[in-house]
Amino acid sequence: MTLPHTAVETPVFMPVGTVASVKAVPQHLLEELGAQIILGNTYHLYLRPGHELIRRMGGLHRFMSWHRAILTDSGGFQVFSLNELRKVTEDGVEFRSHLDGGKHFFSPEHSMDVQIALGSDIAMAFDECTEYPADYARARKSLDLTLRWAERSKTHFDAHKHERPWNQVPSHPSPAAQDGAPASNMPPEAMPSLFGIVQGGMYKDLRREAAERLVEMDFPGYAIGGLSVGEPRELTREVIAETLPYLPKDKPRYVMGVGYPDEIVEYAKMGVDMMDCVLPTRAARHGLIFTSEGRLNIKNRRFAEDHGPLDPECGCMVCQRYSRAYLRHLMASQEPLAAVLNTLHNLAFYLNTMQRLRDRLDTPLPPE
Amino acid sequence: MTLPHTAVETPVFMPVGTVASVKAVPQHLLEELGAQIILGNTYHLYLRPGHELIRRMGGLHRFMSWHRAILTDSGGFQVFSLNELRKVTEDGVEFRSHLDGGKHFFSPEHSMDVQIALGSDIAMAFDECTEYPADYARARKSLDLTLRWAERSKTHFDAHKHERPWNQVPSHPSPAAQDGAPASNMPPEAMPSLFGIVQGGMYKDLRREAAERLVEMDFPGYAIGGLSVGEPRELTREVIAETLPYLPKDKPRYVMGVGYPDEIVEYAKMGVDMMDCVLPTRAARHGLIFTSEGRLNIKNRRFAEDHGPLDPECGCMVCQRYSRAYLRHLMASQEPLAAVLNTLHNLAFYLNTMQRLRDRLDTPLPPE
Repeated sequence: MTLPHTAVETPVFMPVGTVASVKAVPQHLLEELGAQIILGNTYHLYLRPGHELIRRMGGLHRFMSWHRAILTDSGGFQVFSLNELRKVTEDGVEFRSHLDGGKHFFSPEHSMDVQIALGSDIAMAFDECTEYPADYARARKSLDLTLRWAERSKTHFDAHKHERPWNQVPSHPSPAAQDGAPASNMPPEAMPSLFGIVQGGMYKDLRREAAERLVEMDFPGYAIGGLSVGEPRELTREVIAETLPYLPKDKPRYVMGVGYPDEIVEYAKMGVDMMDCVLPTRAARHGLIFTSEGRLNIKNRRFAEDHGPLDPECGCMVCQRYSRAYLRHLMASQEPLAAVLNTLHNLAFYLNTMQRLRDRLDTPLPPE
Repeated sequence: MTLPHTAVETPVFMPVGTVASVKAVPQHLLEELGAQIILGNTYHLYLRPGHELIRRMGGLHRFMSWHRAILTDSGGFQVFSLNELRKVTEDGVEFRSHLDGGKHFFSPEHSMDVQIALGSDIAMAFDECTEYPADYARARKSLDLTLRWAERSKTHFDAHKHERPWNQVPSHPSPAAQDGAPASNMPPEAMPSLFGIVQGGMYKDLRREAAERLVEMDFPGYAIGGLSVGEPRELTREVIAETLPYLPKDKPRYVMGVGYPDEIVEYAKMGVDMMDCVLPTRAARHGLIFTSEGRLNIKNRRFAEDHGPLDPECGCMVCQRYSRAYLRHLMASQEPLAAVLNTLHNLAFYLNTMQRLRDRLDTPLPPE
């Protein structure tokens, strides 16, 4: 997959960098881990520091000094999940900021403007994430809105995608920008992509219809959204399995917001090219560690004098150097280093798992 | 200065790693910054995870995977500063844990046992940190106790210093321990050192007497303690200037708990070899940044769109890559990465300042 800022090898897992930071991890360590592409949350970045500020700073890559690829979501998911008082109309969604309660409005056109200002490599169509459970009539109605919004997203995006922030600012005044591949050195012809999002609740025929109608609109890539919203895991797998055949194999197929290590392996083997999830980073901050032997809670007393690494099969920078005993102590003492090291390991575990799949190594499902 | 784990070039600034972590900084980045020796707090480590646990884990170096030198304080300062209900007797100090209120007792002998269990390269004599202000009679009485405790500290330390934790555990079961210079590869003859601490309040004659009596006891290094306890800065400088001449030039002279960048340069130029302070790390977590142009509060709105690095004169890994605008955003968003990056820069600034002094470069006093 060739993107403005980099080529990305698939299948790929995208660490989540909600507000211009993959929580607790310096960018150069994220590079060392082999992260090829990260996800930024449009809703959060729009509220703070604001997309206009990021545009003036030369785009999100330059603002956060991340030289590889960035995918931004549309903001839809957060608007729906963080807002109890949202008001949906044909035009878009009115919502209140979770930071200060201020009123805001997102339409497909506005979401595109924000994502273009951020300068992401891949933008996502503005969609309504159908809640779970939703009855058929509700899922049908929600899907129709999502499809009309997809059309509007594409029209607006194609008309404005050339307004890249990285052509609009002078060079960085410090020698810093020379390091790596500064966003301002982007070839002027490099264009971001917009992906469509398949919704349709848990209904097979709606998912098929959504896929087919999006394919008619001809997006350069397709996502399956509206999963991991509370449905049983078997249902997630079913919806993915039933939707994938209607999405072209020669374009990236992205399942949003999944999952546990065994899920990402399973979905990648089914043909999914891209996945993102807060799980490895968020769990790390709470002491939940993913390993080749299964999950462990590093806060557990039984690790208090354990000389071994988090995962004996893992060669990451954390497992090479630190013992479970030390990492348990850092959590018990609420040391900020705990979040840094736990996150580094969990991301290494996810990224190495995907690397193994790319190398076509025999990758057994990690234990649940 | 040759220590069991490493040789240390002086003058040296020692980052503070209170509970086996220089807050928010992974050990390999601390090495990249050029930190030669860090300080561990005996009081905190005794309470959590406990010195016996650390001994069983092979000592503090191995527990935290830090291959360079470690100095431990005696616990005295924290016992006195964190405890309102402490009870001082000739034998030692009874105090309550700030974690759970539990009763504990520290004597000179016990402090030595704890520091030997931690396996530090440099241990400190157990002292009473005289409060400020203290009248002459109080300072006299406190100093006499400190000197009797210094004698007891030395006797006990010399009798037990061969009980090094790093000779007492088997090799690390993971390949990790082969990385760097594992503590268990220490030469068996390597012995830790015990430094004496000069007290005496702000009284010139008491400081002189303390220095002379400690020199008679023949320590391998001497610290000036009881400063930065609330006295005016000019007085700190005076006490240091008046005490240094009574401490041998050919042994390390250490001023505890200082200071601002201009102070550490000034004291180093006066002949101080070692300093430690929580300032660069603690201030960083609150957004206070030290630069060649003075201090700045990175939370300030005026940095919101500032493309420049924290310090244009600084070549550290943070200044090479990140803008003030980004670092301000991380603070505003309470991102954990803010503490990591701010701390890396502040430590780089302190350590580079000392490097310049060692290189005998003309080092002007940094702005206040």
